[in-house]
Amino acid sequence: MKSIRVLLMGCGGVGRQLLQHVVSCRSLHAKQGLRLRVVGVCDSKSFLVASDVSKMELDDASLMEICRVKSSGSSLSTLNSSGDSQIFTNMESTRKVLDTATLLGRSTGLVFVDCSASSETIGVLTQVVDLGCCIVLANKKPLTSSLEDYEKLVSHPRHIRHESTVGAGLPVITSLNRILASGDPIHRTIGSLSGTLGYVMSEVGDGKQFSEVVKAAKCLGYTEPDPRDDLGGMDVTRKALILARLLGSRINLDNIKVESLYPDEMGSDRMSVEDFLANGLPLLNKDIETRFRVASSNGNVLRYVCMIEGSSCQVGIKELPKDSPLGRLRGSDNVLEIYSRCYRDLPLVIQGAGAGNDTTAAGVLADILDLQDLFP
Amino acid sequence: MKSIRVLLMGCGGVGRQLLQHVVSCRSLHAKQGLRLRVVGVCDSKSFLVASDVSKMELDDASLMEICRVKSSGSSLSTLNSSGDSQIFTNMESTRKVLDTATLLGRSTGLVFVDCSASSETIGVLTQVVDLGCCIVLANKKPLTSSLEDYEKLVSHPRHIRHESTVGAGLPVITSLNRILASGDPIHRTIGSLSGTLGYVMSEVGDGKQFSEVVKAAKCLGYTEPDPRDDLGGMDVTRKALILARLLGSRINLDNIKVESLYPDEMGSDRMSVEDFLANGLPLLNKDIETRFRVASSNGNVLRYVCMIEGSSCQVGIKELPKDSPLGRLRGSDNVLEIYSRCYRDLPLVIQGAGAGNDTTAAGVLADILDLQDLFP
Repeated sequence: MKSIRVLLMGCGGVGRQLLQHVVSCRSLHAKQGLRLRVVGVCDSKSFLVASDVSKMELDDASLMEICRVKSSGSSLSTLNSSGDSQIFTNMESTRKVLDTATLLGRSTGLVFVDCSASSETIGVLTQVVDLGCCIVLANKKPLTSSLEDYEKLVSHPRHIRHESTVGAGLPVITSLNRILASGDPIHRTIGSLSGTLGYVMSEVGDGKQFSEVVKAAKCLGYTEPDPRDDLGGMDVTRKALILARLLGSRINLDNIKVESLYPDEMGSDRMSVEDFLANGLPLLNKDIETRFRVASSNGNVLRYVCMIEGSSCQVGIKELPKDSPLGRLRGSDNVLEIYSRCYRDLPLVIQGAGAGNDTTAAGVLADILDLQDLFP
Repeated sequence: MKSIRVLLMGCGGVGRQLLQHVVSCRSLHAKQGLRLRVVGVCDSKSFLVASDVSKMELDDASLMEICRVKSSGSSLSTLNSSGDSQIFTNMESTRKVLDTATLLGRSTGLVFVDCSASSETIGVLTQVVDLGCCIVLANKKPLTSSLEDYEKLVSHPRHIRHESTVGAGLPVITSLNRILASGDPIHRTIGSLSGTLGYVMSEVGDGKQFSEVVKAAKCLGYTEPDPRDDLGGMDVTRKALILARLLGSRINLDNIKVESLYPDEMGSDRMSVEDFLANGLPLLNKDIETRFRVASSNGNVLRYVCMIEGSSCQVGIKELPKDSPLGRLRGSDNVLEIYSRCYRDLPLVIQGAGAGNDTTAAGVLADILDLQDLFP
């Protein structure tokens, strides 16, 4: 039986779902001669770790207890150390995480899985790379920080996976990596990578009013609590940067031209969410309606996309043919079109749900398993 | 520098394209610390192999000479042994192939790459699995032979890759494997996996006459020399069997219900190709037109698909919604829709060119590189 040791950072929705998947897949993985051993779990303040990480792991009861505590909104630190596990907090927690990486990285092997949404994991991740650890990310922040951090994280390309940073479990990164490995040059990548903005654009394209669609999306839980966090395009821009860097561009977030769907004067520093929804948003209807009408008169539709072509990387509204994969998009699915030598006139298209804890955690789990040949 | 040793079986269009990709990707792979070493190449009668396979390989000049000889229609056996390489023929060729597998399988590692379209490679492939060799297939025959052969070939699941057996380079197998590994149960898989039949069905759906579309497809080089080889559905059935077995069904080719687009009395044992095109084919127009008209009156279209659902696997014409990914299909692209827990109402969709030597060989090359962690 091959053991894959895992240290999980972040136990929000995705992290907890991952722990549940790990437990529920035990017998499936056993049939494949594999056992996933979760040796420790971090939240922002604490680290719960097996007492002897070389020999032990957190058992399934502990993993389920972690899920229970975290979904009730409590911190891991409310768990007590027992004979089998210890809890560390604050500074001591980081030291103990690095000790674990040092002990296991080059012996049994260890995968650091980052399911947080924080920049604070970057320091640890860049250190554990040199300790022989592997990295699996759902968190976009580590790959969209400085170029120096990026180069460090991908310095052992076979030791890192990050499918769930773009399009949740959709096979986007996997497919791009396969195309790149086979020497097929990618000319252009264009995608609708925000379920929220995909939904908004297709509904407005069907004749609904922009402000009403955004409010409906908020009610349906498609948007962040402040919809401007979606409408500003920053989430799409991080995904665009991850794709652009994967394709070889050595650029930063501020090299990407981003179109926000609301103007600066409606920013969160100037308007409350309520004020924005009631008074700001309706002022944007006319302009966006006009743009849709112009596009429609050209037989086209508007989509909010990221487009990477050569060294250029842009995020914003683009006019696209009605009958292209992006133009036909409805609802909150993500779509990516990849054009290369092999997919020259008609692109390789990947489409499907690009968000959700279940799908994101499934992508993370597939990434972990994809590292198995590196484990003794 | 990590070495991946390769033994290529079959140097038709795909095999030759693979050799060209290997040579043209030298510097790309060197940057990743990799070198692909082709130690030997087989055609149906002969085996050209480096004189000392532990230390040597066929150099790029030899690989290009192989491409030249084979594309001129000659046999490998017309090449002479030199100081650096030896040629073996017939029985001696098979013995020497197995000697090479024995020598390298558990030492340096060796990937057997089958780019032939023959059943004759199965004997060798099932033997080299036990010698520690890895297998990469573009050839569908080994995976669609007896269940006993199949189980043998996949007995070390991490040692086999076969992306290019379905949809050429499209990430079909990779994506299904990721979904399966993450414990996300796949309920239904439905796809148009023949570029030829995809083209025929969409053109007929657009109002053209079946017999004229098939003749046009033959002129465009979309069909086999005898279009009945496509219209009978056997190629799609092999792909369906590969997918069904991957999804866990332990079935054989004759367990699959296949609908042929021509009746037995127009089989190649009863009618010449010319007779079929001139006199057989037009007799089929009326029936297929009627079926399209009925579908259309339901707001649907007809597509020639394979569908795997639970333990059932079917190949034939199916009525599908006009605005589904399959219904919207035009031209010769392949499309696969995957429904699972994570992709329940709206499927994960993979679409793109599913044929062509370049794309197929690119998929084979990506598969070879995906095995790199197994090499010392």
